[in-house]
Amino acid sequence: MPDTNRRVLLRSRPVGEPKPSDFEVAEAPIPTPGDGEILCRTVWLSLDPYMRGRMNDVKSYATPVEIGGVMVGGTVSEVVESRHPDFGAGDFVLGYGGWQTHHVARAGARPGPFGPLKLDPRAAPISTALGVLGMPGMTAYVGLLDIGQPKPGETVVVSAAAGAVGSAVGQMAKLKGARAVGVAGSPDKCAYVVKELGFDACVSYRSPDLFAALKAECPKGIDVYFDNVGGDVLKAVLRQVNPFARIPLCGHIAQYSATELPAGPNLGVVVGMRVKIQGFIVSDHADRLVDFLRDTGAWVREGRVKYREDIAEGLESAPQAFIGLLRGKNLGKQLVRVSPDPTRR
Amino acid sequence: MPDTNRRVLLRSRPVGEPKPSDFEVAEAPIPTPGDGEILCRTVWLSLDPYMRGRMNDVKSYATPVEIGGVMVGGTVSEVVESRHPDFGAGDFVLGYGGWQTHHVARAGARPGPFGPLKLDPRAAPISTALGVLGMPGMTAYVGLLDIGQPKPGETVVVSAAAGAVGSAVGQMAKLKGARAVGVAGSPDKCAYVVKELGFDACVSYRSPDLFAALKAECPKGIDVYFDNVGGDVLKAVLRQVNPFARIPLCGHIAQYSATELPAGPNLGVVVGMRVKIQGFIVSDHADRLVDFLRDTGAWVREGRVKYREDIAEGLESAPQAFIGLLRGKNLGKQLVRVSPDPTRR
Repeated sequence: MPDTNRRVLLRSRPVGEPKPSDFEVAEAPIPTPGDGEILCRTVWLSLDPYMRGRMNDVKSYATPVEIGGVMVGGTVSEVVESRHPDFGAGDFVLGYGGWQTHHVARAGARPGPFGPLKLDPRAAPISTALGVLGMPGMTAYVGLLDIGQPKPGETVVVSAAAGAVGSAVGQMAKLKGARAVGVAGSPDKCAYVVKELGFDACVSYRSPDLFAALKAECPKGIDVYFDNVGGDVLKAVLRQVNPFARIPLCGHIAQYSATELPAGPNLGVVVGMRVKIQGFIVSDHADRLVDFLRDTGAWVREGRVKYREDIAEGLESAPQAFIGLLRGKNLGKQLVRVSPDPTRR
Repeated sequence: MPDTNRRVLLRSRPVGEPKPSDFEVAEAPIPTPGDGEILCRTVWLSLDPYMRGRMNDVKSYATPVEIGGVMVGGTVSEVVESRHPDFGAGDFVLGYGGWQTHHVARAGARPGPFGPLKLDPRAAPISTALGVLGMPGMTAYVGLLDIGQPKPGETVVVSAAAGAVGSAVGQMAKLKGARAVGVAGSPDKCAYVVKELGFDACVSYRSPDLFAALKAECPKGIDVYFDNVGGDVLKAVLRQVNPFARIPLCGHIAQYSATELPAGPNLGVVVGMRVKIQGFIVSDHADRLVDFLRDTGAWVREGRVKYREDIAEGLESAPQAFIGLLRGKNLGKQLVRVSPDPTRR
């Protein structure tokens, strides 16, 4: 067992896109668990777009990371030492350990759906607790089913379709009998989304005429647009929504690194078409966790919801992988393998 | 009884703001009612911002007025001749007769909340069927109570606060225990809204710093913004919404005469603050008519919801009054007195 905790700290607040020099790797002593606590060794670290917001010194729904502080993030860890009766060494837990090799968690200290929560490696690969069976999957589930409410025969468009959230959204839309049209950033991603995930179509957001490209794939108009990107895709969609369209908004990746906020879409059509645009954050919907795990767990076991993982090796690779994620370089859920996963061979 | 039907026709589709020359007054024979129909003489004509949309050749939720066609609009009329058993000469009816002195209506031909519907002049002044107890009042009721859902202690902001819809919204917000802050276009309107209608405050949308002016009157942030204007007010509001704010959108007056649609507000905050923006059109909510008439009827009788009417005299004044309405010249519900109201003295 190593005797230091390696950590990735926020060195400086990025202006625009984060650079490698905005992060630094540092070492610290491995923390000691107190009564009721567990010491965790990180196996998998999740990288997610929302982390870009935490790097800014702006009050949002969550507090920012301090300069010199450890970058935050969801983790799947192995318990190294337990001083809590419900956990034992060798257990695997979902938690919020951040970008570091070790952390101490207090069971019950972070109530809510995302840990610390014991995982059963026989039920599903433990890494899925950060992806299709974790926060991204639940974001898809809540946003699409509760806010989007697609009906059979309707058309659902989803941005970042090859990403962790978008890929689940499209497949869930198909399960509900809707037409699923993705928007993604490369031909590879579009091919993956259509051929492997079973979307009906996928459009590149780099199309010279995004409106026309979408229209060609959405001949009956758009009923649901699941948006985690904002920007031009939203504008193109709003020009072809059907009456009573629903637009769950869970992210605005397109502007996470903007130094000045761009103007948004004209909202006149929202009146005429009685559109509902609703921002949401998955952690507000913890009451749906049991339903989500039951439904999506079954869909994944039955092969009806597929997923991919894009794995960066080693904690030190996290900054570069995160920068790539913001640029759309990943295909599927972006993970960092911080230490070997004993459940995988 | 005059022997001609005077009518205001759409002569040309306006580019930008409508001009008097976009309309023309013409005469036609008074129509003859067939079996099951009633001949109506217009007493009151309602002028409403949505009519600007009908002057454009653009498919919306309703079809446009044709060139040479009679301008559409809600009316309160006296029945001159009835060939329907439920109506008799001298009855007053709410209908959709348009900008003309006479029209024939078929009872049941236009199902829905806005006529033809017999009015009881003893229950309320018949003109209120076009205002506080009609479409504008019901727009306020449905948008505020069903979509906005203000809770006691919350802050409700409403644009066009001295208009037919806005003035009802603010008073209903007060009845629900919320703080009501209006946005209006002149000191006279602001004074009316605060002193006569009992809003807590009113801000001019011409303030040099609209964001700061609103913030001063909304120290606890904004929970509900009832928007019938769009544009800059919406942008200023979005910068100070509270988590889970609701924004019912029922109009976009600010751009009804725009020749090019302006950009909208940046929607990043909609995610972080979990805002719901929902466009709606009152005629979709006919199921709430009975509740609306019961509640708002009582509030008006008890003097808890007050209203004013801004009356233009004679059908020929309709174009100029409508142009004034779009420029915000009216205070309260804009009506045209097309013929004397026998129930008023």
